[in-house]
Amino acid sequence: YNVVLLPGDGIGPEVMAQAKKVLMAVSEKFGIAFNLKEALVGGASIDEMGVPLADETLELCMKSDAVLFGAVGGPKWDHLPMELRPERAILGLRKELDLFANLRPAFLIPSLAAKSPLKGEILSKGVDILVVRELTGGLYFGEPKGIKVRDDKRIAYDTLVYTEDQIRRVAEIGFRVAQNRKKKLCLVDKANVLESSRLWREVVSEVTKEFPDVELSYMYVDNCAMQLVANPGMFDVILTENTFGDILSDEAAAIIGSIGLMPSASLGDKKPYLYEPVHGSAPDIAGRG
Amino acid sequence: YNVVLLPGDGIGPEVMAQAKKVLMAVSEKFGIAFNLKEALVGGASIDEMGVPLADETLELCMKSDAVLFGAVGGPKWDHLPMELRPERAILGLRKELDLFANLRPAFLIPSLAAKSPLKGEILSKGVDILVVRELTGGLYFGEPKGIKVRDDKRIAYDTLVYTEDQIRRVAEIGFRVAQNRKKKLCLVDKANVLESSRLWREVVSEVTKEFPDVELSYMYVDNCAMQLVANPGMFDVILTENTFGDILSDEAAAIIGSIGLMPSASLGDKKPYLYEPVHGSAPDIAGRG
Ligand SMILES: CC(C)[C@H](C(=O)O)[C@@H](O)C(=O)O
Ligand SMILES: CC(C)[C@H](C(=O)O)[C@@H](O)C(=O)O
Repeated sequence: YNVVLLPGDGIGPEVMAQAKKVLMAVSEKFGIAFNLKEALVGGASIDEMGVPLADETLELCMKSDAVLFGAVGGPKWDHLPMELRPERAILGLRKELDLFANLRPAFLIPSLAAKSPLKGEILSKGVDILVVRELTGGLYFGEPKGIKVRDDKRIAYDTLVYTEDQIRRVAEIGFRVAQNRKKKLCLVDKANVLESSRLWREVVSEVTKEFPDVELSYMYVDNCAMQLVANPGMFDVILTENTFGDILSDEAAAIIGSIGLMPSASLGDKKPYLYEPVHGSAPDIAGRG
Repeated sequence: YNVVLLPGDGIGPEVMAQAKKVLMAVSEKFGIAFNLKEALVGGASIDEMGVPLADETLELCMKSDAVLFGAVGGPKWDHLPMELRPERAILGLRKELDLFANLRPAFLIPSLAAKSPLKGEILSKGVDILVVRELTGGLYFGEPKGIKVRDDKRIAYDTLVYTEDQIRRVAEIGFRVAQNRKKKLCLVDKANVLESSRLWREVVSEVTKEFPDVELSYMYVDNCAMQLVANPGMFDVILTENTFGDILSDEAAAIIGSIGLMPSASLGDKKPYLYEPVHGSAPDIAGRG
């Protein structure tokens, strides 16, 4: 297997060095040959090549079987305009590789329960959540998007847009992973305010017919943010759009107290897929091993 | 003072009945005369008058000194189109009365600490957060907004839009309330992805100059969702846009374990202001007193 390693910035290179050891151990133990190639990404790439994601790096990824991503970003590059920031690298990879389904598990590791900010009586009901976040649509990529001046005043806008196909393909992944878990899927949206959420409800209630063994429920995003803290044991799979998924998956990682340990997979219709930790580049603790 | 009471749906009428007793006690004790008028709103108004917010009700509110709002919504009205849903009532009142700053405190009531889902060691650092949520802009009211069919496929969109004036006026309120608290204001946004967030940063970093005694910091919304659970004691005032404020204020209420007790105030440039509990209509427990 051709695997591209993109360590990135901050603690990225440190976690990547350890991940590589794990890959080599897997390789030896199970006789799987990995052909590892490393490339710069994010701030490290900006410093060396002037852009967060070089064309050669993207091509290397496209020809691979899998991409292992560390983390990008840091105060050093915060002043840069949007298109040149380290974050563009991961957003660019998601978009170019069409990785539309981001799977972010948050499960309680019993030996680490003491690290959770939640009380034992809440954890005792068990926490095993999988957030399925749509990753290539919504506010992240919607057009128009920009800041302009009108009558001498600045006005800024972003567009939250989804097509039914974009919703259907990630919903199908959501239902499929739910089938292999507790068979419960909760669509999280803001259907009492957003038109895009209304379309999500329409399409998901169509897709649910293909998966009669999975129990579908609906929840507003504000309520979900509350229930994740008050009653996390109620969730199995959470399906949601890009921005809500960004917020809720971080919250879910926090409640189990192990954001530093949570993995994530970004899937598309075909390989390569991309794998990255849920944590970021954590510049404040970088360089300490 | 002319006060309009809008009990609404679910537990709304039940909490309003108790709130009325409190108002009367205040009236007697401090010799303040309240002229109370009650009107239907939300689902109750739909059932009676076919619309969630009747013109007469809106006019009554406009002529008042303050509006006390219960809660709206329930499964009975969930099938209705967006413009006719109970939620339109509260959104309409916010917009028509131009109530752009929603203040949502989340503080730990010591005698209720046992109700919090968080561990004592986290609560012991103290939790006293005030979320200042922008209430009349962003995805809630941005145009265009809708679902259309293009090449036989449905496509849905909402628009996140902010002008610099909209940001400035709520930021000023944020700084002013921070001056009366611990003098820390954290702007929560997604400036690594959203253009609107970039404008928020620009404008808030202008406004901060008028309030040199308040310490300004910035945080991404996903990180904030995490820190609210892991480290809530770090926050004083959180300033944020409409949708993020919706999500984060509910999360903040959940961590102190008292969502049923948290109040909120929605302020504008001039009276009437609107006051409502943070909780919703809670149809599942309505009618039990
Ligand atoms: C770095 C940032 C653009 C990214 C996102 O918002 O998707 C990160 O927060 C994540 O969740 O992977
Ligand atoms: C009822 C709904 C439209 C409303 C909102 O999203 O603003 C509610 O959740 C709130 O926070 O007051």
